[in-house]
Amino acid sequence: MLNAAEVETAMRRALALAARGPAIGPNPRVGCVILSAGGAVIGEGWHRGAGTVHAEVAALNSLPNPDAARGATAVVTLEPCNHTGRTGPCSDALIAAGITRVVYAVADPGDDSRGGASRLAGAGVVVEAGVLENEAEAFLHTWLTSVRLERPFVTLKWASTLDGRTAAADGTSRWITGTASRQRVHEQRAASDAIIVGTGTVLADDPALTARGDAGELLGHQPIPVVVGERPAPAGARLRAHPRGLIETSSRDLAAVLSGLFELGIRHAFVEGGPTLASAFVAAGLVDEYLIYLAPSLLGGDRLAIGDIGVGTIGEARRLRITSVEQLGDDLLITAAPPGPVTPLSHPTGPLERNA
Amino acid sequence: MLNAAEVETAMRRALALAARGPAIGPNPRVGCVILSAGGAVIGEGWHRGAGTVHAEVAALNSLPNPDAARGATAVVTLEPCNHTGRTGPCSDALIAAGITRVVYAVADPGDDSRGGASRLAGAGVVVEAGVLENEAEAFLHTWLTSVRLERPFVTLKWASTLDGRTAAADGTSRWITGTASRQRVHEQRAASDAIIVGTGTVLADDPALTARGDAGELLGHQPIPVVVGERPAPAGARLRAHPRGLIETSSRDLAAVLSGLFELGIRHAFVEGGPTLASAFVAAGLVDEYLIYLAPSLLGGDRLAIGDIGVGTIGEARRLRITSVEQLGDDLLITAAPPGPVTPLSHPTGPLERNA
Repeated sequence: MLNAAEVETAMRRALALAARGPAIGPNPRVGCVILSAGGAVIGEGWHRGAGTVHAEVAALNSLPNPDAARGATAVVTLEPCNHTGRTGPCSDALIAAGITRVVYAVADPGDDSRGGASRLAGAGVVVEAGVLENEAEAFLHTWLTSVRLERPFVTLKWASTLDGRTAAADGTSRWITGTASRQRVHEQRAASDAIIVGTGTVLADDPALTARGDAGELLGHQPIPVVVGERPAPAGARLRAHPRGLIETSSRDLAAVLSGLFELGIRHAFVEGGPTLASAFVAAGLVDEYLIYLAPSLLGGDRLAIGDIGVGTIGEARRLRITSVEQLGDDLLITAAPPGPVTPLSHPTGPLERNA
Repeated sequence: MLNAAEVETAMRRALALAARGPAIGPNPRVGCVILSAGGAVIGEGWHRGAGTVHAEVAALNSLPNPDAARGATAVVTLEPCNHTGRTGPCSDALIAAGITRVVYAVADPGDDSRGGASRLAGAGVVVEAGVLENEAEAFLHTWLTSVRLERPFVTLKWASTLDGRTAAADGTSRWITGTASRQRVHEQRAASDAIIVGTGTVLADDPALTARGDAGELLGHQPIPVVVGERPAPAGARLRAHPRGLIETSSRDLAAVLSGLFELGIRHAFVEGGPTLASAFVAAGLVDEYLIYLAPSLLGGDRLAIGDIGVGTIGEARRLRITSVEQLGDDLLITAAPPGPVTPLSHPTGPLERNA
């Protein structure tokens, strides 16, 4: 019998393997380690993205020979699935291989995929849940939130001056934030499945909405642009040349829009505005993460990052919790989230300075 | 002859002595160490506030006997004054005592008080300037700025939500920021000579404008309240019971108002708003330090911390530099300053986290 420390070490390794997978797309990042009855690591695997084998199968495939799985323990970051998609259920694969014990960190909340633990137990496999659960929950926060809510995890980003303005009175706004902030935004786009903007932004700014590097080159992953609004994007809009194509919707029901995106496999949406769309997302309570870039300047005037969010009196204020503050060049990036269970977010930002 | 390290050590001691004095009132905090020809510390003194002896005289008074000053070196944080106020010129006192060498950190910019170095040199005293000049400049930043500009150093404070609002649509604003932030504001008031507000704020909020502690008790120093606006503060306004009295002005010329406050000995003014007055100070370029409290919430609507500041286009944006970010309970306190020479500010806040 393996001891708890051996299992935890293997789970930590499985989380590290999981992190090698892509953080985008419909599937979660999962890692798996197979331990012999004596506690030796005999197999390792991770999921490399939709259409490829799941972590458990990758780990089984890595065994020196198929018989090595007999009597072995599979340590996996997410409950093995019970779902036949482009690959068969992992729970069946583990049972068939002769695995006799499965340890996982966090339960699969997916309507289609959950139930693997029951299936394993029904087949006589010893199942243990919750090892390093907090770490795995933080690691998969975006994906788990999305699957639990059956809509994409929504990151709302805006950039404003210290007085909350996004542009001067005449509408000019070029270079409010510095290059470090702009580059970070491109990286955040590349870490998302979709970028959502309003038609107002398309008409005013004609954005390309691509994720680009320092030299203007396209980054490896391009999120698909989604334009919300009644007017179609103009025929000559730069957006129409986006490498991923373009999704347009005239629906005013943002929850329905998100639900439709979820059906398309989109788990993480990056909302870039403008103010009307941003305020509508806030008002609808559909924001899971706020990325607020603050430039060290003041503008005054009426071009605000956020407009009416349906708050009439102070008791209705939308309370958030600030999860990190980071300096980017001369700017600040404040990351905030709705209140609720204090789940550490999976961002690589440092801890907030505490001077109080 | 003393070596440079001995002199620098004495200057560091003089700065520590200076910090024992009050950071408020018309006079600077100054410390003085007297070294014998052999380098021994034989006298120490610091200024304890207007109406008491200056640091140099305090140090001379601390000597074991008056003759000890003959041939000694005075190490003082600020150029000895050449001004007869409630006390005589320190330069004369040093000459009369027989001091043969004076080392100081930073020159006295005061119209009335400068010239001590020339006077000393004219009397045959060896004078050396600029030892630990940067440290002394940072330590006396507020006072030096005030005396150089011949107006109070202006700290503008506002508290807003992350979207720049100070109140909900119906005007309610209670407890936007938390207790740690509110307590800090009271401490900042107590470190100022005057609090400036607009009549709009007096009429809307009826503030006491006292500096109070945790339990509501008055702090040791109370800045004098100054109300700017055409309407007088109402007869029953709480402000009228302020222990320091009340200054009212209907002038719209903020530079003239500040000049008048300077004449009254006010070196540090704390501007608390509301938005009209705050915006007027920003528009006039009369803010030396910004203290921006950000509460982790969103309000939307039209109650903004800052209104029109005379910026029409992006190139006119008022650029600042953020000098510190601090967490206070759930809030953030962002300290910023106008661009320009990067003088380290004398605040006890920690360094900004750098994750970029």
